[in-house]
Amino acid sequence: MSTLFAETALLPAGWHRNVVLHYDEAGTLVAVRPDADPADHPRAGGAVLPGVPNLHSHAFQWGLAGRAERGQPDGDSFWSWRSEMYRFLAELDPDAVEAIATALYLEMLEAGYTTVVEFHYLHHAPDGRPYDDRAEMALRLGRAAERTGIRLTLVPVVYEAGGFGQPLAPEQGRFRLTLYEALGLLERLEAAGFAHPLGLGLHSLRAVRSETVRDLVEDRTLLARPRTLHMHVAEQRQEVEECVARLGARPIEWLLEAADVDARWCLVHCTHADAAEVTGLARSGAVVALCPTTEANLGDGIFPFAEYERAGGRWGIGSDSHISVDPVEELRWLEYEQRLVTGHRNVLTAGTSRSTGRALVDGALAGGWSAAADNVGRLEPGGRADLIVLDADHPRRRGRMDDALLDAWIFSGGDSAPAHVMVGGRWVVRERRHVERETLAAAVDPVLARLPR
Amino acid sequence: MSTLFAETALLPAGWHRNVVLHYDEAGTLVAVRPDADPADHPRAGGAVLPGVPNLHSHAFQWGLAGRAERGQPDGDSFWSWRSEMYRFLAELDPDAVEAIATALYLEMLEAGYTTVVEFHYLHHAPDGRPYDDRAEMALRLGRAAERTGIRLTLVPVVYEAGGFGQPLAPEQGRFRLTLYEALGLLERLEAAGFAHPLGLGLHSLRAVRSETVRDLVEDRTLLARPRTLHMHVAEQRQEVEECVARLGARPIEWLLEAADVDARWCLVHCTHADAAEVTGLARSGAVVALCPTTEANLGDGIFPFAEYERAGGRWGIGSDSHISVDPVEELRWLEYEQRLVTGHRNVLTAGTSRSTGRALVDGALAGGWSAAADNVGRLEPGGRADLIVLDADHPRRRGRMDDALLDAWIFSGGDSAPAHVMVGGRWVVRERRHVERETLAAAVDPVLARLPR
Repeated sequence: MSTLFAETALLPAGWHRNVVLHYDEAGTLVAVRPDADPADHPRAGGAVLPGVPNLHSHAFQWGLAGRAERGQPDGDSFWSWRSEMYRFLAELDPDAVEAIATALYLEMLEAGYTTVVEFHYLHHAPDGRPYDDRAEMALRLGRAAERTGIRLTLVPVVYEAGGFGQPLAPEQGRFRLTLYEALGLLERLEAAGFAHPLGLGLHSLRAVRSETVRDLVEDRTLLARPRTLHMHVAEQRQEVEECVARLGARPIEWLLEAADVDARWCLVHCTHADAAEVTGLARSGAVVALCPTTEANLGDGIFPFAEYERAGGRWGIGSDSHISVDPVEELRWLEYEQRLVTGHRNVLTAGTSRSTGRALVDGALAGGWSAAADNVGRLEPGGRADLIVLDADHPRRRGRMDDALLDAWIFSGGDSAPAHVMVGGRWVVRERRHVERETLAAAVDPVLARLPR
Repeated sequence: MSTLFAETALLPAGWHRNVVLHYDEAGTLVAVRPDADPADHPRAGGAVLPGVPNLHSHAFQWGLAGRAERGQPDGDSFWSWRSEMYRFLAELDPDAVEAIATALYLEMLEAGYTTVVEFHYLHHAPDGRPYDDRAEMALRLGRAAERTGIRLTLVPVVYEAGGFGQPLAPEQGRFRLTLYEALGLLERLEAAGFAHPLGLGLHSLRAVRSETVRDLVEDRTLLARPRTLHMHVAEQRQEVEECVARLGARPIEWLLEAADVDARWCLVHCTHADAAEVTGLARSGAVVALCPTTEANLGDGIFPFAEYERAGGRWGIGSDSHISVDPVEELRWLEYEQRLVTGHRNVLTAGTSRSTGRALVDGALAGGWSAAADNVGRLEPGGRADLIVLDADHPRRRGRMDDALLDAWIFSGGDSAPAHVMVGGRWVVRERRHVERETLAAAVDPVLARLPR
């Protein structure tokens, strides 16, 4: 049994002072005692919050970050970026993907993300043929999580079309996976003793046929298998227009109608949502994964977040393409975009800490980390000891506690890395450095040095 | 004579390899030699760029950062934030302002800003009466610059109205300064041997009467005195509407017509500029000071930057209210806001390094650092040895040079602090820490601890 004393901690009911956390060898909290005597418990050294869940990651894209920021003569967009991304991944092998994911997950932990949902669609070899072990790439992502200590939910992704009613393009051969192949992959991973929870992804209505969505939804046995269901929805205007033309409805509208969308679903982006879709999304109980830095980098547009908050919708954040790996930048600019659009400040109706707190809890839900399976995102008995420690050493934070400290963290300054990070009762970051940063860097650097440029 | 060897450096004509910089005791570059032998010159340890000029600062607002991020029941805006700001500054004394400015300027240097233009309007005591030395507050800002080593241009600001045709409100008494009092202040500072260049500010068309603008413009002798002229323009929609009602023209439109706006002017924000104003601004040669993080935090709106770039307008960045002190966040989100609005990527027509390079050079111009006075912003003989060193130690930057390194710096990751920073030939930041961080912190912390909360 271990203990940790925090002067202040964000518990499910809000901030509490003088909290002693007791956790067992397996990293599960067995008692959480506010207003306790510090006695000689080890001190956290700052405010304790649940670790931040990262709801949406394509690990390999970290290797492309900062490499597609040069203007094209005839204008650049999401679609030209996608071509760059295809070119980049054309030669990536499993060693490269594992090295990238290791460097990335280390960076995530140092930034305060303790859980990551990997939306995994780079399944096959460069020529489009499956690896001898069809789970090769998935296993490598699991290995990167194990090396760094991040909590992973792996979501293998169905990908079967090159666009609405279009065959796959040759450069999409590495992604090809039918629903039944995806289920086979889940089985193979379970057989291999894969140590991480599994979800199921449908890439998007662009890349998955509507019949497949209906097949999945109608087969309740099949639908029950993955812990969580993830899908990109309504990221681009062109996608919305094509969906209306093909399926007679907007993507979110179609999905809410065709699939029995509930709290097990995580819908990624939902950028182009009209008022009815916002209401429908909020009512469904699904979690919307918002990825403000990626959505801005790709020029996707701005999700109607203020309306969604008012409707009581669930949401969390994701670093997606990893051009930024910093929960503060996501939360800050999620709010700032609303201010720019509305001309009002402090758009989050619930206030910083309650909104942030909900992003943590709802985000954990989207990782399949519900109380029934593994309780992540809530510091309470039975929950996982996954937490971050925000110190008040920076002059911008000194003397601030609770909500005032959270406000300073999110809306002030750039030095946002937590001081310490714990996953499952184990310190993985101390003094802003991953405890194995040097060892891991030495292992992956030679592979990273060979990445395509 | 000292030297510095850089593997790569951003010189006025672009990137050059193997550059030896020679600079004298006064911190002036006497020779800049590309394609040189590294010999045993000290190594920069990364790519060398001119230091970043910060075109717009209200130092005291640093103390408020993160303290006005709680929603008001009836909606919050720029105007309610301004009330919070007035409340915060009501009791600030010269010691507090000097301590805040010292902490802030230290943070700026560590972030890569080597020059700051202080738009100074907190002139008088809390009761609105001038201090015994009317230059008290200005001298304290100068002292903070001297303690930290940042290059300062001080811009005392004329402030005479509480809004279009409105008298000053009681809480604006500390700001009250007529044009002739401002000129008196410049004289007093010169007499006191103030070591920093001086500009002149007009707060805004809200706070300065149109007659005063005309008086200044018509008196060429008077106009010739300050090195640079700064003014807030068109930050808020309400301001534009009131200006049209009162003066019969939009603020930028009115100013371009009434004042002989040229390259000596720096117009701050210009958020609400229509197509004709964008063209007029670009033609005038004035520098627009863009402050994306503050403009987002305050919900001001989005400057039509893509159009302004296409028109060849001059611009630089400012950290303004200091809710963020990070040139990368300003440059990144300046571009991202355009992507969100247009749906296109890579909106900067000139590409990252040329745009960034122009922000550095134009920005220096706005600080009054023209070649005729002090040559800042260009690494060339006769220029100041003000520079930052970007290392490539982070895995996201490794192996990247020149534009690719700049792209990674601006558009990838959060670890944006330069490794080392030099001002006037003196290293002020080494290994990401101000060389006197501890001493300065010990001196200012007790004062900062007494700030209003």
